[in-house]
Amino acid sequence: MTGVSRRGWLTGGALAAGGTLVGAASVAAARSEQPPVRVPEPVPASVTVGAAVEPFHGERQSGIATEPQAHAAFVAFTLRAGTDRAALGRMLRLLSDDAARLTQGRPALADTEPELGLLPARLTVTFGFGPGLFAAAGLDDRRPPSVVELPSFPIDRLQPRWSGGDLLVQICADDPITVAHAQRVLVKDSRPFATVRWVQQGFRRAAGAEPGRTQRNLFGQLDGTANPKPGQPLETAVWITDGPDWLRHGTTLVVRRIRMDLETWDLLGRTDRELSVGRRLDSGAPLTGTAEHDEPDFAALGPDGLTVIPDFSHLTRAHVSDDRLRILRRPYNYDGTPAADGTADSGLIFASYQADIATQFLPIQRRLAERDLLNEWTTPIGSAVFAVPPGCPEDGWVGQQLLD
Amino acid sequence: MTGVSRRGWLTGGALAAGGTLVGAASVAAARSEQPPVRVPEPVPASVTVGAAVEPFHGERQSGIATEPQAHAAFVAFTLRAGTDRAALGRMLRLLSDDAARLTQGRPALADTEPELGLLPARLTVTFGFGPGLFAAAGLDDRRPPSVVELPSFPIDRLQPRWSGGDLLVQICADDPITVAHAQRVLVKDSRPFATVRWVQQGFRRAAGAEPGRTQRNLFGQLDGTANPKPGQPLETAVWITDGPDWLRHGTTLVVRRIRMDLETWDLLGRTDRELSVGRRLDSGAPLTGTAEHDEPDFAALGPDGLTVIPDFSHLTRAHVSDDRLRILRRPYNYDGTPAADGTADSGLIFASYQADIATQFLPIQRRLAERDLLNEWTTPIGSAVFAVPPGCPEDGWVGQQLLD
Repeated sequence: MTGVSRRGWLTGGALAAGGTLVGAASVAAARSEQPPVRVPEPVPASVTVGAAVEPFHGERQSGIATEPQAHAAFVAFTLRAGTDRAALGRMLRLLSDDAARLTQGRPALADTEPELGLLPARLTVTFGFGPGLFAAAGLDDRRPPSVVELPSFPIDRLQPRWSGGDLLVQICADDPITVAHAQRVLVKDSRPFATVRWVQQGFRRAAGAEPGRTQRNLFGQLDGTANPKPGQPLETAVWITDGPDWLRHGTTLVVRRIRMDLETWDLLGRTDRELSVGRRLDSGAPLTGTAEHDEPDFAALGPDGLTVIPDFSHLTRAHVSDDRLRILRRPYNYDGTPAADGTADSGLIFASYQADIATQFLPIQRRLAERDLLNEWTTPIGSAVFAVPPGCPEDGWVGQQLLD
Repeated sequence: MTGVSRRGWLTGGALAAGGTLVGAASVAAARSEQPPVRVPEPVPASVTVGAAVEPFHGERQSGIATEPQAHAAFVAFTLRAGTDRAALGRMLRLLSDDAARLTQGRPALADTEPELGLLPARLTVTFGFGPGLFAAAGLDDRRPPSVVELPSFPIDRLQPRWSGGDLLVQICADDPITVAHAQRVLVKDSRPFATVRWVQQGFRRAAGAEPGRTQRNLFGQLDGTANPKPGQPLETAVWITDGPDWLRHGTTLVVRRIRMDLETWDLLGRTDRELSVGRRLDSGAPLTGTAEHDEPDFAALGPDGLTVIPDFSHLTRAHVSDDRLRILRRPYNYDGTPAADGTADSGLIFASYQADIATQFLPIQRRLAERDLLNEWTTPIGSAVFAVPPGCPEDGWVGQQLLD
């Protein structure tokens, strides 16, 4: 279509050649005046799910401590050869501008579907920098040492199609059309600089479906109970407060795609499931407690003289007592098309934010890989790590401190 | 696992053979008493999105005149050889029971993730019978004549992976976890009788995102404006009131997967798009009106002496003036993973309900296939037709009138 004006393309020869529309061309050609584009007005703020807004500009990026939205698309890009530091600056200036507008319910600058940009539905767009971005920018020396491909674990069955990535864009909103539209805009504007490496789309409970409850995964487990509490624990666990200037108020992100084998899980009885997890399935309470947020008592013995919470339970292996070493889990479920025989393609897009991967994520992951009964029913099939730069002021863009 | 008790499987040799869990077996084996299963209590009804309920039992199936929910999975099955009339009866008894429970926020009878069955979120489960079901039941003579593969249209590029199906289960809810769980339960319980032929998952605006508005598709168009109005128009257009007893209060369903070429669509200017559609993109008003539901004036001429709404517009070609001949569109958007170059995999799961396919759907489809400018940017890639039996009373099951 290059070289043919848009109007000319619709009304001229290109269409007539289509064959089915004889007459259409001449009718439309007579409509020679193109009225001014009507860009729709933003919807006024209200209490609807669609009108709710999260900030884009600020010291820190949104989409991290933000109460998780119902829908997410994690989009990982591979930079094109030639996307150097200067090109990365142009790219992130453009994508930051798109995000700044869309998150506030305004269409992107060159938005071709502006009506789809009017409902922010708590949209957040969060950028992460993979190891390859530092290399492309010639800034390998500024890459945080632990932002590097994770060591391989015996439980891993990683597939390239779900792994790696130079740039991550995490798009979250309470409305799935809002996510689809933001994904479309950001992918289009990335084209000169990068190709799409993988996209993982996921979901949690709908906005308002179960207010104030921890998310459930497709095994039926509550998922995220042990997250650092808002306030100082979350501050310390997630945000980088020392280290290089450009990363202050940043964090790191690990994304793992975990296949969940519903076929074998569904063969287990409830008690066996609860022993595997270390928690009740209904309330999420530790087996030694009655409420979800009760502190587990790993020393408590049952009448049989054994610990009530088994040593090999997920709770025991994942447990972190030092608030500073916790990770902020922000997972989404995925559910693909089942096979002909009904075998589910279900699992978890595990996403965790932590100030440091080496001291927070890795020790937990090592303990889980070594001995966690849940490994019998789960398989990591994708893995990627990113440095998450700080936010930006209204006249800035994400990554500016590193790339400008 | 057959022949090994669930408890035995977790705690016995099967796991120890896994290698990573030496010790776990003996610890757990000592916990010999299996406490009674705790089936969680249903959540009391409230105003939350999650607690809202649609009826299952009744003269007519839900999920048709029901205000469309945010999420849908259309699951088409191929019956196994040997699934005859009696087996179909057993299958639909079972699936109706699952649906009756899950839609009311109660876990299915053998629900292995009962916690995921507690939030109905307006769940509906709607059954449709494809031509193959009538053949398998030895009831070809009772198949409505127009429930047969549609004639092929020159615009079609149908793929077997999105086409056909002996039994359709349409699962809709305002919560995506609710849809995933219902899909899992219904697919599992179908296994003895059928294999999964295709699954199409789709979405509309989230519940509460934009109350009272017509849905938008990923082209940004309002979609469904011309649906028959509630009351007598909808009654007449959708529900079968004469014909065979077993189909009274039933209807028919056409599901078409329509790929939307966002790449070329995005090259068009707004005016060209609006001429193609015959409506304004912002308000959905016909080009001769100012509000979405204004009656289009196909005779109105512009200053250039041509009709304001072009002959080749989608609105003109799809227009039906006789209320009895309208179709009830209940479409969902789909958005798959974009290609490496960013090309979107987006489109519409077109679903329409009408009393008769031959006199209502087909004439519209023929007019659109012959001359509809939108054909330039859309391609039908899947097609399936179903007879939709009436609903069932509390002591019955869907399809009983035909199959019992």
